[in-house]
Amino acid sequence: MPKNQQFKEFQEHSVAEFFKKNRQMLGYSGKIKSLTTVVHEYVTNMIDAVEEEEDNLPEAFVKIEEMGPEHYKVIVEDNGPGIPENYIGKAFGQMLAGTKFHRFMQQRGQQGIGAAGAVMFGQVTTGKPTKIITGQGDGKILECELSIDVKKNRASINNKKTYSGEMKGTRIETELKNVLYQKGRYGIDEYLRRTVLANPHLKLTYVDPEGKTIIYDRAVEDIPPKPKEAKPHPRGVTVDDLLGYALRSNSHKIKSFLRNDFTRISGKKVKEIQKKISFDLNKMPKDLKWDEAEELVQTFKETDFMRPPTDVLVPIGKKRLEKAVEEQLEPEFKQVVERKPKVYRGGVPFIVETALAYGGKAGNNNGDNEIEIMRFSNRVPLLFNKGTCAITKAVKSVDWDRYGIKDNTPVTILVNFTSIHVPYIGAGKKSIAEEEEILNEIRLSLMKTGRKLGKYLKGKRRQRKRLQKKKTFEIYIPEISKSLSEITGKKEEEIKKHLQSIVKQRFSDIKEDE
Amino acid sequence: MPKNQQFKEFQEHSVAEFFKKNRQMLGYSGKIKSLTTVVHEYVTNMIDAVEEEEDNLPEAFVKIEEMGPEHYKVIVEDNGPGIPENYIGKAFGQMLAGTKFHRFMQQRGQQGIGAAGAVMFGQVTTGKPTKIITGQGDGKILECELSIDVKKNRASINNKKTYSGEMKGTRIETELKNVLYQKGRYGIDEYLRRTVLANPHLKLTYVDPEGKTIIYDRAVEDIPPKPKEAKPHPRGVTVDDLLGYALRSNSHKIKSFLRNDFTRISGKKVKEIQKKISFDLNKMPKDLKWDEAEELVQTFKETDFMRPPTDVLVPIGKKRLEKAVEEQLEPEFKQVVERKPKVYRGGVPFIVETALAYGGKAGNNNGDNEIEIMRFSNRVPLLFNKGTCAITKAVKSVDWDRYGIKDNTPVTILVNFTSIHVPYIGAGKKSIAEEEEILNEIRLSLMKTGRKLGKYLKGKRRQRKRLQKKKTFEIYIPEISKSLSEITGKKEEEIKKHLQSIVKQRFSDIKEDE
Repeated sequence: MPKNQQFKEFQEHSVAEFFKKNRQMLGYSGKIKSLTTVVHEYVTNMIDAVEEEEDNLPEAFVKIEEMGPEHYKVIVEDNGPGIPENYIGKAFGQMLAGTKFHRFMQQRGQQGIGAAGAVMFGQVTTGKPTKIITGQGDGKILECELSIDVKKNRASINNKKTYSGEMKGTRIETELKNVLYQKGRYGIDEYLRRTVLANPHLKLTYVDPEGKTIIYDRAVEDIPPKPKEAKPHPRGVTVDDLLGYALRSNSHKIKSFLRNDFTRISGKKVKEIQKKISFDLNKMPKDLKWDEAEELVQTFKETDFMRPPTDVLVPIGKKRLEKAVEEQLEPEFKQVVERKPKVYRGGVPFIVETALAYGGKAGNNNGDNEIEIMRFSNRVPLLFNKGTCAITKAVKSVDWDRYGIKDNTPVTILVNFTSIHVPYIGAGKKSIAEEEEILNEIRLSLMKTGRKLGKYLKGKRRQRKRLQKKKTFEIYIPEISKSLSEITGKKEEEIKKHLQSIVKQRFSDIKEDE
Repeated sequence: MPKNQQFKEFQEHSVAEFFKKNRQMLGYSGKIKSLTTVVHEYVTNMIDAVEEEEDNLPEAFVKIEEMGPEHYKVIVEDNGPGIPENYIGKAFGQMLAGTKFHRFMQQRGQQGIGAAGAVMFGQVTTGKPTKIITGQGDGKILECELSIDVKKNRASINNKKTYSGEMKGTRIETELKNVLYQKGRYGIDEYLRRTVLANPHLKLTYVDPEGKTIIYDRAVEDIPPKPKEAKPHPRGVTVDDLLGYALRSNSHKIKSFLRNDFTRISGKKVKEIQKKISFDLNKMPKDLKWDEAEELVQTFKETDFMRPPTDVLVPIGKKRLEKAVEEQLEPEFKQVVERKPKVYRGGVPFIVETALAYGGKAGNNNGDNEIEIMRFSNRVPLLFNKGTCAITKAVKSVDWDRYGIKDNTPVTILVNFTSIHVPYIGAGKKSIAEEEEILNEIRLSLMKTGRKLGKYLKGKRRQRKRLQKKKTFEIYIPEISKSLSEITGKKEEEIKKHLQSIVKQRFSDIKEDE
């Protein structure tokens, strides 16, 4: 090759081209997984959309139609606010565009990739655009066909028509080929079942490819509070983030920038910080140098701050989760733990919730002799890539044996990770990265549930032992009664009754039906 | 929130912003992993660069300097062609730009993200740019400091200077904070050791943070052939790909397009295809419709084609791999299998190589009682995310027990996956997606190595049993000799010698030293 030849081949390519070529990074590898991923992206988007409106209980419709061998149509409809005409392209036909990426707010989606990825997957497997029908409840309905101009990463919209009619919400229809519908732990049925488990306020109607309709009614009727947009917490913010915030700040002094743009930094705290650092906080935020920012971050680490406010995070909630676990798993024993909010890298607040269910329908029914783990992030079920997920790692790091929990103990563990920003390992949002603080919190909550179940199991074992003892005594009563009767001359029946009453008294804690 | 409020927040963001916020997707999570990832990106880039030139044996220098607590400098230097001034920005400071993405050619890098990601990680943890020194062997040396304008995804280059001097190659220096150097299976030492194992033609000098210099000399002196740029193979091409190729084709008819732009489609094959399909292949490629392309793809599937040519793929090679395994693991038994090339999705050719080593230094020394698996893709070691990798899945799917291989058998399995395009699960290129064809090939090659080792172990067990038998005989020889001597009157010593010679003869296959 002549000198510098290869540099002449330099090209730029769009993010859509990148993900088209590497669609497996978005979860499009494997026929079953690909179909579930499309449903996952649309359902996630949908619930987020509905929850943008206050006082709107989400109602969703999901239908999978079989069109031919390995050929399906996915239809998802919601009762959300609908999409204005001029935003449809950005919402569904352009990657890295959206409302969610720059927000510091708990949402299911966060990248502005997912829905466009599903549209693109439909397009590259069938050559067909995605149909979108949307209404904002103002008597007008908009219908169009949308595809992605992959080279430009821009939507191309065709056959647009507006007509009169009553509709509030959005309906998406995408055809897919080279995918497969199957029941089982990686299929849509399981995905939706878990979605309902973590979103008990959702009403979901699901029509499967055989035409069977399953209606999941709401387990609770109250709308969960809408998460507030958050400010970063000083503990754990990085130098680079701090400089980025400073650059975007409207404040004229670093002092006011710290007070306004962070949570939990009061005027008093600013004074405390000023005392510890070497430069004047009266300078302009944009004049903050790297070394100074580094000093500030170090000082943050050595300063006590209140925990981040809880209203920016909306976990499922202890009662709701208990109710959902009760209804879905009917366990013999359950334990739900909700930890206090913590922060990880960049001052990002998060909350870990853990539920442990024992007996009933709990436990892994797949015959692989492992504890069943249900993973969720911001209430979204994570079915794939369990091997690399912080939740799985945390579960495996706990010494369950210590609590009397073995591989074949019928246990289901549910972990919901709630955060402003979930550090997903891949753009496909299938598993959570092992940030130390996250791993630690999950571990602690698991150990707490483990201890509780351990106590319960110990009690159960003790009971079982005492029951055996009781039974042993009971077996020997006739023989002993007989010989005592012979020795003492008393009536055998009388002695028997007496002995039985002694046994009954001493083992009064044992239930008869066990 | 007022109606349509959230849509006013719509924003677009650059791919660099995306990966800055989601740096864990590029492998930047965890202190040890982050440091190894930077080295991985630079070393991968470096060997690719050197191999762009024919007849250039790669020589690399890697140095890790400890600058403070969790603060290091990574220096990587190669003897490649150097980088022209006007391409430095695109090569190191812009994501999704490069020579590799659009090529249909086997390379280590393929995304145009990795090196820029490493530069960005240095920049966001230290605030400092990456220093680049490069020369093309023409008496001029160029030095500059490079950082990324994240919002624009463009390089910003400062302090550029050109001076005289002899240099051919490129040197990169990046400072990093919040990272940690550690030995062990996820550290740089192990990464480089495996790099050398899969690239026995590389000379590598490595200076670790303690200042210790390790020189890996070449195990082989011959330069591996440079992989040729490939054309797609018709078997397995998707409809969308076919239409994409057709659109970019210079041919005036589909007939010539098929012959020119694909491998293994001869004029004869075109005729065969024309007979099977419903439309005329004399039309222009750009006029190809989706349905027609679909028909063509279906016809490709039903037509026999020769396997893809092998010269587009350059695996490590059986002899080289045997030599490398021999030198690094000194095993008692080894078996290397190289499969024939196959294709997966999109007509992408690939080759699987597997080495199995038993005894010596082979086996997992980490005490977790698992078979050691060394994963490689295009000769690049994969240290992380093993749980989601097709290679791990394939290894776990094999019934090793059948071959007498248990968890504690000292076995190391090495798999190198060679392809034009590796379907990585994430942008961090840590693991290979489970494409069916890939999984299958790896499985088949593993089963072959397993059978061979099984035979060897069976032989060994038989030998051990016969050795025991022999020893048993030998123990009784004195006693028997004595009693025979008493009965027959013959000399005891004579009988003993006779019996010993019988035993020796009958167990002539048993080595004395065992």
